Amino acid sequence: MQQYRTLQILQKSPNSRVFHLYLNRPHHRNALSRDFFTEFSAALSSLDQNTDAAVIVLSGTGDHFCSGIDFKALNSITDHPPSFDRARANEKLRREIKVLQDAITAIERCRKPVIACVHGGCIGGGVDIVTACDIRYCTQDAFFSVKEVDLGITADLGTLQRLPGIVGYGNAMELALTGRRFSGQEAKELGLVSRVFASKESLDEGARLVAEEIAAKSPLAVTGTKAVLLRSRDMNLEQGLDYIATWNSAMLVSDDLTEAIKAQIQKRNPTFSKL
Amino acid sequence: MQQYRTLQILQKSPNSRVFHLYLNRPHHRNALSRDFFTEFSAALSSLDQNTDAAVIVLSGTGDHFCSGIDFKALNSITDHPPSFDRARANEKLRREIKVLQDAITAIERCRKPVIACVHGGCIGGGVDIVTACDIRYCTQDAFFSVKEVDLGITADLGTLQRLPGIVGYGNAMELALTGRRFSGQEAKELGLVSRVFASKESLDEGARLVAEEIAAKSPLAVTGTKAVLLRSRDMNLEQGLDYIATWNSAMLVSDDLTEAIKAQIQKRNPTFSKL
Amino acid sequence: MQQYRTLQILQKSPNSRVFHLYLNRPHHRNALSRDFFTEFSAALSSLDQNTDAAVIVLSGTGDHFCSGIDFKALNSITDHPPSFDRARANEKLRREIKVLQDAITAIERCRKPVIACVHGGCIGGGVDIVTACDIRYCTQDAFFSVKEVDLGITADLGTLQRLPGIVGYGNAMELALTGRRFSGQEAKELGLVSRVFASKESLDEGARLVAEEIAAKSPLAVTGTKAVLLRSRDMNLEQGLDYIATWNSAMLVSDDLTEAIKAQIQKRNPTFSKL
Amino acid sequence: MQQYRTLQILQKSPNSRVFHLYLNRPHHRNALSRDFFTEFSAALSSLDQNTDAAVIVLSGTGDHFCSGIDFKALNSITDHPPSFDRARANEKLRREIKVLQDAITAIERCRKPVIACVHGGCIGGGVDIVTACDIRYCTQDAFFSVKEVDLGITADLGTLQRLPGIVGYGNAMELALTGRRFSGQEAKELGLVSRVFASKESLDEGARLVAEEIAAKSPLAVTGTKAVLLRSRDMNLEQGLDYIATWNSAMLVSDDLTEAIKAQIQKRNPTFSKL
Amino acid sequence: MQQYRTLQILQKSPNSRVFHLYLNRPHHRNALSRDFFTEFSAALSSLDQNTDAAVIVLSGTGDHFCSGIDFKALNSITDHPPSFDRARANEKLRREIKVLQDAITAIERCRKPVIACVHGGCIGGGVDIVTACDIRYCTQDAFFSVKEVDLGITADLGTLQRLPGIVGYGNAMELALTGRRFSGQEAKELGLVSRVFASKESLDEGARLVAEEIAAKSPLAVTGTKAVLLRSRDMNLEQGLDYIATWNSAMLVSDDLTEAIKAQIQKRNPTFSKL
Amino acid sequence: MQQYRTLQILQKSPNSRVFHLYLNRPHHRNALSRDFFTEFSAALSSLDQNTDAAVIVLSGTGDHFCSGIDFKALNSITDHPPSFDRARANEKLRREIKVLQDAITAIERCRKPVIACVHGGCIGGGVDIVTACDIRYCTQDAFFSVKEVDLGITADLGTLQRLPGIVGYGNAMELALTGRRFSGQEAKELGLVSRVFASKESLDEGARLVAEEIAAKSPLAVTGTKAVLLRSRDMNLEQGLDYIATWNSAMLVSDDLTEAIKAQIQKRNPTFSKL
Repeated sequence: MQQYRTLQILQKSPNSRVFHLYLNRPHHRNALSRDFFTEFSAALSSLDQNTDAAVIVLSGTGDHFCSGIDFKALNSITDHPPSFDRARANEKLRREIKVLQDAITAIERCRKPVIACVHGGCIGGGVDIVTACDIRYCTQDAFFSVKEVDLGITADLGTLQRLPGIVGYGNAMELALTGRRFSGQEAKELGLVSRVFASKESLDEGARLVAEEIAAKSPLAVTGTKAVLLRSRDMNLEQGLDYIATWNSAMLVSDDLTEAIKAQIQKRNPTFSKL
Repeated sequence: MQQYRTLQILQKSPNSRVFHLYLNRPHHRNALSRDFFTEFSAALSSLDQNTDAAVIVLSGTGDHFCSGIDFKALNSITDHPPSFDRARANEKLRREIKVLQDAITAIERCRKPVIACVHGGCIGGGVDIVTACDIRYCTQDAFFSVKEVDLGITADLGTLQRLPGIVGYGNAMELALTGRRFSGQEAKELGLVSRVFASKESLDEGARLVAEEIAAKSPLAVTGTKAVLLRSRDMNLEQGLDYIATWNSAMLVSDDLTEAIKAQIQKRNPTFSKL
Repeated sequence: MQQYRTLQILQKSPNSRVFHLYLNRPHHRNALSRDFFTEFSAALSSLDQNTDAAVIVLSGTGDHFCSGIDFKALNSITDHPPSFDRARANEKLRREIKVLQDAITAIERCRKPVIACVHGGCIGGGVDIVTACDIRYCTQDAFFSVKEVDLGITADLGTLQRLPGIVGYGNAMELALTGRRFSGQEAKELGLVSRVFASKESLDEGARLVAEEIAAKSPLAVTGTKAVLLRSRDMNLEQGLDYIATWNSAMLVSDDLTEAIKAQIQKRNPTFSKL
Repeated sequence: MQQYRTLQILQKSPNSRVFHLYLNRPHHRNALSRDFFTEFSAALSSLDQNTDAAVIVLSGTGDHFCSGIDFKALNSITDHPPSFDRARANEKLRREIKVLQDAITAIERCRKPVIACVHGGCIGGGVDIVTACDIRYCTQDAFFSVKEVDLGITADLGTLQRLPGIVGYGNAMELALTGRRFSGQEAKELGLVSRVFASKESLDEGARLVAEEIAAKSPLAVTGTKAVLLRSRDMNLEQGLDYIATWNSAMLVSDDLTEAIKAQIQKRNPTFSKL
Repeated sequence: MQQYRTLQILQKSPNSRVFHLYLNRPHHRNALSRDFFTEFSAALSSLDQNTDAAVIVLSGTGDHFCSGIDFKALNSITDHPPSFDRARANEKLRREIKVLQDAITAIERCRKPVIACVHGGCIGGGVDIVTACDIRYCTQDAFFSVKEVDLGITADLGTLQRLPGIVGYGNAMELALTGRRFSGQEAKELGLVSRVFASKESLDEGARLVAEEIAAKSPLAVTGTKAVLLRSRDMNLEQGLDYIATWNSAMLVSDDLTEAIKAQIQKRNPTFSKL
Repeated sequence: MQQYRTLQILQKSPNSRVFHLYLNRPHHRNALSRDFFTEFSAALSSLDQNTDAAVIVLSGTGDHFCSGIDFKALNSITDHPPSFDRARANEKLRREIKVLQDAITAIERCRKPVIACVHGGCIGGGVDIVTACDIRYCTQDAFFSVKEVDLGITADLGTLQRLPGIVGYGNAMELALTGRRFSGQEAKELGLVSRVFASKESLDEGARLVAEEIAAKSPLAVTGTKAVLLRSRDMNLEQGLDYIATWNSAMLVSDDLTEAIKAQIQKRNPTFSKL
């Protein structure tokens, strides 16, 4: 498997279709460096194409999930020689931001579910990442902060676009304006995470179990569910219904449907081929 | 009143404007058969036109609210002679799915509020139905599951389109990808139901009281609220405000407004004519 | 400062950038009169332009936050001589409603955060106001009601458009159809308010502290966050990301960013110039 | 075939898959009566389901295509006893208009192309009809008018929604505000019709030839083209591209594709089975 | 009537409901100054509220319709002391542009039709103005240019948003990228103007006649047509149809409809009361 | 410069900022092969990043612009072993189509204007390409056909999404349903091309002159115009105006604006630095 400087990919057991993706700069609290953005996009694309992988579990190594964007990364996109035309600098900055955004959106472009496992801090850019994930779990001592406002900037990597759909506009506004720290428990109450675990160990184990469970389901149904649910965000109801009808005209009748029904009748676990 | 094979309509008291609609295949756990989809659409259309009916309470007979789509119904829309052109089969399947969807959407086309009362299981197609209802109540021992993923299919009768607006995208994705069972209590915490009742009896009584209360309100205001709130889903704020301004230019000045104000001044209950 | 008949604006301390805006008709439970709608729009516009003001705290004087629209105001927009052409009356009514709506939307047009502090009743038009605010707090004994349905009318000042994004469509429909009273605690559980305070005093103090905290942050970041989050309501994800990238190409590189970073390094509080 | 009072359906030759639908109240210049709206919807639905029909040619009998809505039909939807609650009358009127609109939209719901052949006058409601058709031809002496403004009403059967996409917003506004009569030749220049024929005979023959030509093409491709082009109206580019990719994942690989390629190689006309 | 420095309003005959609005800086080729933007918005608002006015004819005094934005106006929105925070300057510039845009959009906010009469040059900001008008006429020797690109800027007062809907995206892109001059005749072929007149005199007379004709029609129908057609730009077909049905539930049954029908039966011109 | 198998890139003069991109499979009438789709995307991306290039002229070598998709390319995306799960084959086909679409959309992703020069045939996939270009010119003997319907398929590379905005929905539907051949002259009348040239030589020369002219303009203004006009397709008017205001808050004040004004005052040609 490809080596990364800021990430690590692990397939913990050779038969498992669950792949683990780690933010892996523990000594920098997994701050998001320039390299990270390039590698994250590449890693998710490779996992998307890897037919062995069915589900991805995203965690941070070290004491924290992610402390947000690295100052050097921020500097690298804002720095220009003083003589440089101000409008050209702005045009370039706009493109740079879109490249960074694009790396986060790679989570959604990946057809397979990505489960975020948050322990310790999940700050700024970390929140941008987890809001793009499909399922979010955390530990009891995890803490979150939409911190950009304290850096004097408007968050621009996706939180302001994705968070309202997850926790509602009221909560999103309050969290983004205050930048206040909130706990794993509150994240659960807000709907940001689906479960809170007592420890890092139980989080890892709990997430692994859910991941394995999803990985054992029909890959057509799992990737279809992710795709159609994401697509429903920017369609009205009529369009959304028409879209899934069109989708299922191609995907409903499958070996997976046959196998799922057969297995139910035979009271056994179904097995599905890879996608 | 019209007789149905899969449904029953009851007006429990001759003076009541609350009508009860039952999923009525208790020996099949109210599984959704081909007949159901035809009859459900017809029943809601007749209730919409019935000026005696102001509010509809939707429940299941037997031990469960609904166990989802019937295998035979699923089979009937996917089965074709092997010689049949694959694209033509897909085109036909697409139209069939739209017919099934349309039956569920009949709940929204009905101008009058539909209150779902869930006891026992509410699985797969059952969730499609309740997410299209206007108010949802359940018993403590009710349980829900967005089960389609376990049948090897992507849910296509509305859950993936309506659930995110009710429980948020985060919760919707987690429930749809795992297909896990969740309790009435969790449904309440997620915002899927508005109240949890201790027993089927208290659910029935509680829902009946709320239904009677709404039925005693101005039918113009009640149907207007339902219509405008549903419409606001696919409009931006400016459009939504303009729409209700236009709506109320026609509907605000009414006998109901006059009567409501008069009754408040006279400290009596208002009475409104049918719609 | 401008004098108002239905409002009061207070800057409680000369150095504070927090301005307090009061609904100030305590003997009418702050019912919304015709004057209110003119003045509210003007007051928020003046606060928007006032460079001394960074955050606005909105409260009600007397025992209640707001008892909803004044009957006389309602009458003034619906009353016409009987000989008047019915369609012309409707056309005029439509424009009147849009004027009233526009006054509420002034909260969103104001670039600066508006924090609603609800004590006592928040009824009908009061809910229209608070759903347009950016942060909502209340006391334990506050109570809310989307009351319009009981007046025989469909709510038309914004609640049906804004509430679903805050509490979800399920909760919004239930509250709007029943018009039932709900407590501050339930408002918190629904996501309508962010915090519940034990008393009016602790509410005032709590809101003031948060307001001062936000007022001490970068005004570019604070107003940017409000603007971009509001804008994200009617854009799809791709548009939303492109929009903030374009926004930040103009606003990211600022004295505020420099100061924020410098202050972090120097472990001191940053100070930002006015906007 | 079903008998209609206001319409006639003709299959001019038993082997032809072109069906002719006539507005058939020549003595009333094919004015649109109440019956028309019911029958038009039914006729198009039956043609949609009739597997013998591949293309529909829509013409008017007598001297004109259509003189617009019948005064009696207009009266029937606006008349109420004077004692009737004004808001209830408006609510009913709103539903009536939607029923009439729905009859026109039946043209778009029909999967098969509808070719409008206009001779003589095409006034008011006649324009509503032709703008919903897929292809429009006319004679040199045809004349058109978006006439509603001269009846003191805002056109409400679709012209204001469909005409701008056909002739541009500038032309649509000018035609709708002036209600002026414009010729077949100008209709061609505006993009409202695709061809102008010298006489009614050449129009009929020309339309028949094009209809037969389309009827000889792959029904999957023809109905797919209509469906996808109509759908593209309310999707942005990215959604539209994703939609046709999803559509073609189900419909591209077909007997028709195989036959079309085989026929090209064998230099013969392809033959396709019905849909 | 109010006096303006950059505009003139004339009611040429006391009984006429046609009002003439002139761009009135002939010695500056009606270049758009800072004053213009303030006054234009005010003038259109006053004409909207003036019940004597039914239609507005917009022309330029002197040799040209409009030579675009005044350099001084441009300078006034871009100039800042060099020490000023760059981001704050950008934030201010953004608001300034929105103020200028808002002045142009006043044409659409005015309920009454605005007919643009172009003679001589219509350059840059002049095109922004005419694309916001409802009907456009010009002289044979009129010439147009989307000139902003030659000033080194991207047009920001509405042309890039409105022109594509009028002339199509292909033409709009070609005109905006090349900035080339095109004649009145070509403007007609592109759909930008509805008629070309041989001389300034025939333009004035032709526009006056059309304006008087529209002014004699039902004001409810005329303003309704403008409003609904503009609204249809940002609604899909289903929304657009629902909107006009809702609109007409309030506006269809009117004295104007009664009078229009009566006048037709009595073969006389109808007369309508003011709006 | 990179070598391509299906394309050629030429910078005809070392100082020119106009780059020529050729479809370069003349012996296959520039049919679109599998390689083409990979290379086209890469070529446009490289031209986008090449600061020497300001404008791209796209032509075909040999006798035709483009004869559409290559049968082998079509085959390569539809062919699967018969044992392969039908739904998996469909899912793969969907992704393949999106890859092909994405190659065409590379024209829009390229910030710089792309001018299509059509001579000879422009068939099927050729139309998909030119509708994605910014300016279209052709020779008198050019001919076009939206040919997919004759292959038994629904066009899926962008024509059905882009053509309606260029020629209107009426024309787009007629062309797509009939697949009929239309001339360069008709393409001009429909708005598909902006100019028709008498010969290939005059086309090349005419396009080159326009390209050089645009290349001499401010690159900020040119790329801004393209970007904002494309973006306006999926925004409503209010969003579009807000977007360009935000854009120009970053890009309006530039060296290019200064230089453009200075050059106008000094009556000389401006010179702009690269972007």
